[in-house]
Amino acid sequence: MSGWQNYIEEHRERYVRELSDFLRIPSISSLSEHADDVKRAGEWVAERLRKAGMEAVEVMPTGGHPVVCGQWLHAPGKPTVLIYGHFDVQPADPLELWTTPPFEPEIRDERIYARGASDNKGNMLTPIIAVEALLQTDGTLPLNVKFLFEGQEEIGSPQLADFLKNNRELFACDLILNADSGQWSEDQPSLLTSLRGLCGLQVDVTGADSDLHSGMYGGAVQNPIHALIQILNSMRGSDGRILIEGFYEKVRMLSDAEKAQLDSIPFDKSEFMNGIGVTELFGEAGFSDLERIWTRPTLELNGIWGGFQGEGLKTVLPNKAHAKITCRLVADQDPEHIYSLIETHIRQNTPAGVKVDMTPVESNANPYLMPADLPGSLAAIEVLSELYGKKPILVREGGSVPILSLLLEHLGTYATCFGFGMNDEKFHAPDEFFRLKNFELGQRAYCKILHRLGHQK
Amino acid sequence: MSGWQNYIEEHRERYVRELSDFLRIPSISSLSEHADDVKRAGEWVAERLRKAGMEAVEVMPTGGHPVVCGQWLHAPGKPTVLIYGHFDVQPADPLELWTTPPFEPEIRDERIYARGASDNKGNMLTPIIAVEALLQTDGTLPLNVKFLFEGQEEIGSPQLADFLKNNRELFACDLILNADSGQWSEDQPSLLTSLRGLCGLQVDVTGADSDLHSGMYGGAVQNPIHALIQILNSMRGSDGRILIEGFYEKVRMLSDAEKAQLDSIPFDKSEFMNGIGVTELFGEAGFSDLERIWTRPTLELNGIWGGFQGEGLKTVLPNKAHAKITCRLVADQDPEHIYSLIETHIRQNTPAGVKVDMTPVESNANPYLMPADLPGSLAAIEVLSELYGKKPILVREGGSVPILSLLLEHLGTYATCFGFGMNDEKFHAPDEFFRLKNFELGQRAYCKILHRLGHQK
Repeated sequence: MSGWQNYIEEHRERYVRELSDFLRIPSISSLSEHADDVKRAGEWVAERLRKAGMEAVEVMPTGGHPVVCGQWLHAPGKPTVLIYGHFDVQPADPLELWTTPPFEPEIRDERIYARGASDNKGNMLTPIIAVEALLQTDGTLPLNVKFLFEGQEEIGSPQLADFLKNNRELFACDLILNADSGQWSEDQPSLLTSLRGLCGLQVDVTGADSDLHSGMYGGAVQNPIHALIQILNSMRGSDGRILIEGFYEKVRMLSDAEKAQLDSIPFDKSEFMNGIGVTELFGEAGFSDLERIWTRPTLELNGIWGGFQGEGLKTVLPNKAHAKITCRLVADQDPEHIYSLIETHIRQNTPAGVKVDMTPVESNANPYLMPADLPGSLAAIEVLSELYGKKPILVREGGSVPILSLLLEHLGTYATCFGFGMNDEKFHAPDEFFRLKNFELGQRAYCKILHRLGHQK
Repeated sequence: MSGWQNYIEEHRERYVRELSDFLRIPSISSLSEHADDVKRAGEWVAERLRKAGMEAVEVMPTGGHPVVCGQWLHAPGKPTVLIYGHFDVQPADPLELWTTPPFEPEIRDERIYARGASDNKGNMLTPIIAVEALLQTDGTLPLNVKFLFEGQEEIGSPQLADFLKNNRELFACDLILNADSGQWSEDQPSLLTSLRGLCGLQVDVTGADSDLHSGMYGGAVQNPIHALIQILNSMRGSDGRILIEGFYEKVRMLSDAEKAQLDSIPFDKSEFMNGIGVTELFGEAGFSDLERIWTRPTLELNGIWGGFQGEGLKTVLPNKAHAKITCRLVADQDPEHIYSLIETHIRQNTPAGVKVDMTPVESNANPYLMPADLPGSLAAIEVLSELYGKKPILVREGGSVPILSLLLEHLGTYATCFGFGMNDEKFHAPDEFFRLKNFELGQRAYCKILHRLGHQK
């Protein structure tokens, strides 16, 4: 057994105690009354990095919640890895649904319950512990390490783009490990290989100057709600296929091998349906459920409103109707190009008697498809195979993780997701927890992957 | 000149003073803090009826705002006419848009400005003055007269159905005149011959148990907004025609004479469009604008909502979507039958992956088509022709007036609309006014029509 392995086991209780201390700080980034707590959590992280042996540790201002950085760069000729995580958490309400208070961590059945336990305090602590264990036992690290922990992930990292742009050199690296992620199940490791991108818009349809009486005007004047649904309905066939011209043109089709790989994933359809309370799934014909969620673009109506929404009856012919639309995009779709296709489609399908305004959403995201030969990912596959005794399955994500795109855009580096959360751990919900078994597994995994990356080069 | 004509001219100033007193009572039926004012207005009306010589005058309880009745039944062998009006008014806000305060009547340019001046206090006062003038000069009335004034018209007369059902005998009559109406223009009289009916429903579409993340589920799960717009869009063609099977089956087509009559109406299309701020009209192909508003049924979306309606972006796949639908109906469509056709259509057009609930609105209304030979209407045509020097045009209304249906249902009698408001008099808006010229014209018109009806029999 390696020295670091002994070290980790010996200090197990201390690590859990430290995690508990960290979890007691209610670092809710979305509530301004907790801004000081977010800062306090950042200072806790900075202190912990120093204690682990990191240098140049700083709590850096961003204009919003701070970023904490630290580094150890004494491995000349070796690659530099940047490790990412976040110390802010989601709000804890509804409080009454928590078994124990969200910021008073409690261990039950080898799980630690608290807001942020899994997302992301428990996970982000594991690489810090790993470098401490390596430095304490080996006296050195196998490669150069930088840390970047932020305090605004749960509110969409609004200041992070500018911050990264202004600190490119500080965070320059050869590869990135993202601790804000997880594994498929307790006995099945996984590696994330792609995420979908995003573009979207709000559509505003206007008819008359003001709402009209449906008796006095109904039949003579275009109804903006009717016009809107006609436009929206023209965008998608009843078979779920998007009918906007050119929408699928740049979509990269899966190879037979990729298809086979997806089909081999132990996706439990009835569990998926039970989890959300539906009795059948629906989507573009000719693709499996996982293909549709992970590898096909969508056009989703996120919201719609117009006219009377109260109780009972109001015989109004409204003068406005609105909808929010977002598309999930896949490689090699371009958000701006897709937006322009939607815009053209709407112009061409606007019926007589109304005018239409369109406003793009600000937070476009490119689809994120990782190169298959990413060194961090190859190392992750080996480490996970060793720890779990089986190869990780290659998974994708239907959502977008803005930080990965930001890191790629500003640092020019893809990130390998290397975290040990699990989907059942109720992040963003009451009774969030983290498996202590995975807390320790993560520490060992980080020791192993740092060693492997140090010796790869 | 008849005696009553002199009498009206001599007492002109008193009548305007009385109208001003009546208008000073803020009898807003929709605001509970004005309930006493509504009652006070009822008492004012009762007192005025007694002063006019009416008997058995009473302020009758209804469970809500009261009804005022009065009668004069000393013309044995003559028909009995029931005259209807209302003494409640709309709210006056926004107050800052009034030139003078809404409950401090002011005369400018021979118009009296106040909330309720035209709708309906000025108009309902004219028949009271008429019977007073006839009794004071002739010493008798040419027929039996009953009055029914209500205090809840502006809130949809919620207690009136039960009230009429319980007082059928008290209000039994041969014909009805409705003072809550108006004329086409200052020099063009008009007579209302039909109104559209109404039926409607709320549609609720439900997908998953709760809102879903559009990244994690988008592409695999039916979106209730998509399902809803697909359902709604299937109900109407892009040419404005309703596509619900059987929807038009019972619609009575206009005769050539009726069509010609409609075409002869001086409908100013550009004034109509300017008034509401649209640059083109829209509706079922093959029918004129007036035909569509007055003689064709509609299916209108009064409201729609679901998912995220806030600022910016929320990538939610909502679990619910809702719409409010009402149909305007024409003879001989039946509200319940049309509802059942809509229900069937929705069931047949509900896409996979969602469930749909439908709730009918409570206030159905039958289409109201007056018999061409209604004695009250024939008399009205003659009186209007005489007063204006030209025949009234026959007009229709696209809306529904519930009280007319209630009177027909419970008393078995159609009403002739006989009022002297004008569409530009801003009822329900700031600076409502009534033309004093029409206040007097109405008084003379009621004297004449009562005489004519008394001598017809």
